[in-house]
Amino acid sequence: MRKVDSADLDQLTLGATLLGTGGGGDPFIAKLMVEQAIQDFGAIDVATLDELDEDDLVATVAVLGAPTVIVEKIPSGPEFTNAVRALAAYLGKEIKAIMPVEVGGMNTLIPLAVATELGVPCVDADGMRRAFPQIEMTAFTLAGLSASPMSLADEKGNKVTFETTSNQVGEKLVRGSAMMLGLANAVSLYPMTVRQAKDAAVWGSMQYCSDLGRLLRAVQHQEDGAWDQLLEFTEGVVAFEGKIIDLDRRTTTGFARGTVTIEDFVDPGRTMRIEIQNELLLAIADGRAVVTPPDLICMLDHETSEPITTETLAYGQRVRVLALPCAPEFKRGNWLDVVGPKAFGYDVDYVSLEG
Amino acid sequence: MRKVDSADLDQLTLGATLLGTGGGGDPFIAKLMVEQAIQDFGAIDVATLDELDEDDLVATVAVLGAPTVIVEKIPSGPEFTNAVRALAAYLGKEIKAIMPVEVGGMNTLIPLAVATELGVPCVDADGMRRAFPQIEMTAFTLAGLSASPMSLADEKGNKVTFETTSNQVGEKLVRGSAMMLGLANAVSLYPMTVRQAKDAAVWGSMQYCSDLGRLLRAVQHQEDGAWDQLLEFTEGVVAFEGKIIDLDRRTTTGFARGTVTIEDFVDPGRTMRIEIQNELLLAIADGRAVVTPPDLICMLDHETSEPITTETLAYGQRVRVLALPCAPEFKRGNWLDVVGPKAFGYDVDYVSLEG
Repeated sequence: MRKVDSADLDQLTLGATLLGTGGGGDPFIAKLMVEQAIQDFGAIDVATLDELDEDDLVATVAVLGAPTVIVEKIPSGPEFTNAVRALAAYLGKEIKAIMPVEVGGMNTLIPLAVATELGVPCVDADGMRRAFPQIEMTAFTLAGLSASPMSLADEKGNKVTFETTSNQVGEKLVRGSAMMLGLANAVSLYPMTVRQAKDAAVWGSMQYCSDLGRLLRAVQHQEDGAWDQLLEFTEGVVAFEGKIIDLDRRTTTGFARGTVTIEDFVDPGRTMRIEIQNELLLAIADGRAVVTPPDLICMLDHETSEPITTETLAYGQRVRVLALPCAPEFKRGNWLDVVGPKAFGYDVDYVSLEG
Repeated sequence: MRKVDSADLDQLTLGATLLGTGGGGDPFIAKLMVEQAIQDFGAIDVATLDELDEDDLVATVAVLGAPTVIVEKIPSGPEFTNAVRALAAYLGKEIKAIMPVEVGGMNTLIPLAVATELGVPCVDADGMRRAFPQIEMTAFTLAGLSASPMSLADEKGNKVTFETTSNQVGEKLVRGSAMMLGLANAVSLYPMTVRQAKDAAVWGSMQYCSDLGRLLRAVQHQEDGAWDQLLEFTEGVVAFEGKIIDLDRRTTTGFARGTVTIEDFVDPGRTMRIEIQNELLLAIADGRAVVTPPDLICMLDHETSEPITTETLAYGQRVRVLALPCAPEFKRGNWLDVVGPKAFGYDVDYVSLEG
């Protein structure tokens, strides 16, 4: 096990912003929560799956809601431990470790704060190694694991525990309750043994996120060869570079949806259109799908290489679009039904970044 | 304890239809469920609160949803016992008796079926002695009891358990989940000890309902003095007699809402307007509120004295409107806030039927 201290959070937060692919909430708010938790409860134990007892019970914890609401109504803390405790009580078992459900966005960092407050380690693994808008869109689902029993809690003391016949029904139910409770709630879900996690989870995603943050910081500091190192580490490609010439955003059916169009710096005849549903999900260049979910679309400011979230998109911004291949753990079972373009209602086929 | 058998159901069903005040679902469907349960599990033990151990745990059980949906999607049974079992598991305690939450509409009869299937008695008491559209509108709430923990179940095996800071929040949450699960679900709620029930519940409401059904059947059979007996038993009054001349129905915000206007048989200048929210809730005669919640508005066919539900209201129907005083257990605490006219958004004051 290694200790995570405040000094480690900068890289992790930057990496989490990139893996948030424009969504996933603002990791900076979550970073403040973790710093407070470290101050109150001490440095956080982060364990690999190998370091835990195979029979131990692990559960994920996350904030659930609309990023726009979460920014205004910062999660205060007790609802997260309440959600985990409600789930443990429902199961009648002790939860021995906390795991992120997504490493990407603010849900990368929140589990660290919750783990130290509960006095258990945080597992260096997750279910996505990116952010996705719905709870069933995980490598866990694809490995046949149930998201439920799962518990939702708000800051006032309301608690709801779900036991559902599918993770899709679970998503509908938990989101319905979250809408009633203000759309910025804590959820603890996917209880599983370490043995199950070993098969189902994306291993080492916290370390991956931290490494990614370190490499991106080097890019921002214009260190020699940093770009190449970032692309090599992620096996990513620069998919487009240009200026935002059109932006359409709307909030419908509980999601922030929109479309952003980018024009090539050199050739104004070349454009890329990116479809948004909380995250940047689908990139169409010159009428052809070029980056499709579950692969990642990351947008950076062209000058500063700061990741751009969908909330801060603006007309005239000069951007660089990175395409990163998804965690290989996604590519099993009926993965295209769960995390492919059609799962988001896009009538296009998955396009591999490998060509 | 007395035994309730199929032969007792006719009176109880008729009484429940009257106490449904036009809503509460169709008790005839629930009667079929009870007949099946009696066939499968035997006659039902009905106990008064005095006959049970004061420390025993009692819980209510009901169908929750829209009457219009429930008629099309008849509850099949296992979801009710599933809801009770989920609640018992959450509490970590055995539920020793089942109680109706409302005696009025189909939720009068469903607890009988559930009780015999679970092998426990059904309590002759409830929280309303009428039907109301929302779960917090009970004498239990007014006695300071919590509706939660409460468990919702559907026929597919989905279960949701709520622990809420108020019965109003509980209503919002449970209805939100029921909307996701098809609006015809089983709910088990208001777990309480017999000791608490003795203070909070309306005693003998099943017997009251059965007696009411017997008296109404006598009216229908045109027995001598039957009308007077019915009015004496209920302390009710005939509030209006006439013909339906206007009917406006709409389904909004999860409720069946509407307005029905009745014209006096003799004097066409005299009209009564009744406002509907699932139930018949507010009667305005000649511009003045004359029957207000929680008092009961019961509409009968003028010729046959069959209770008319809001679904079967029709232009030109000849009707008699009965006004019955509510159970006295409603009149405590902040009762007007919870079950008075303003709780339904009507800007009128409560009008006592005695005045």
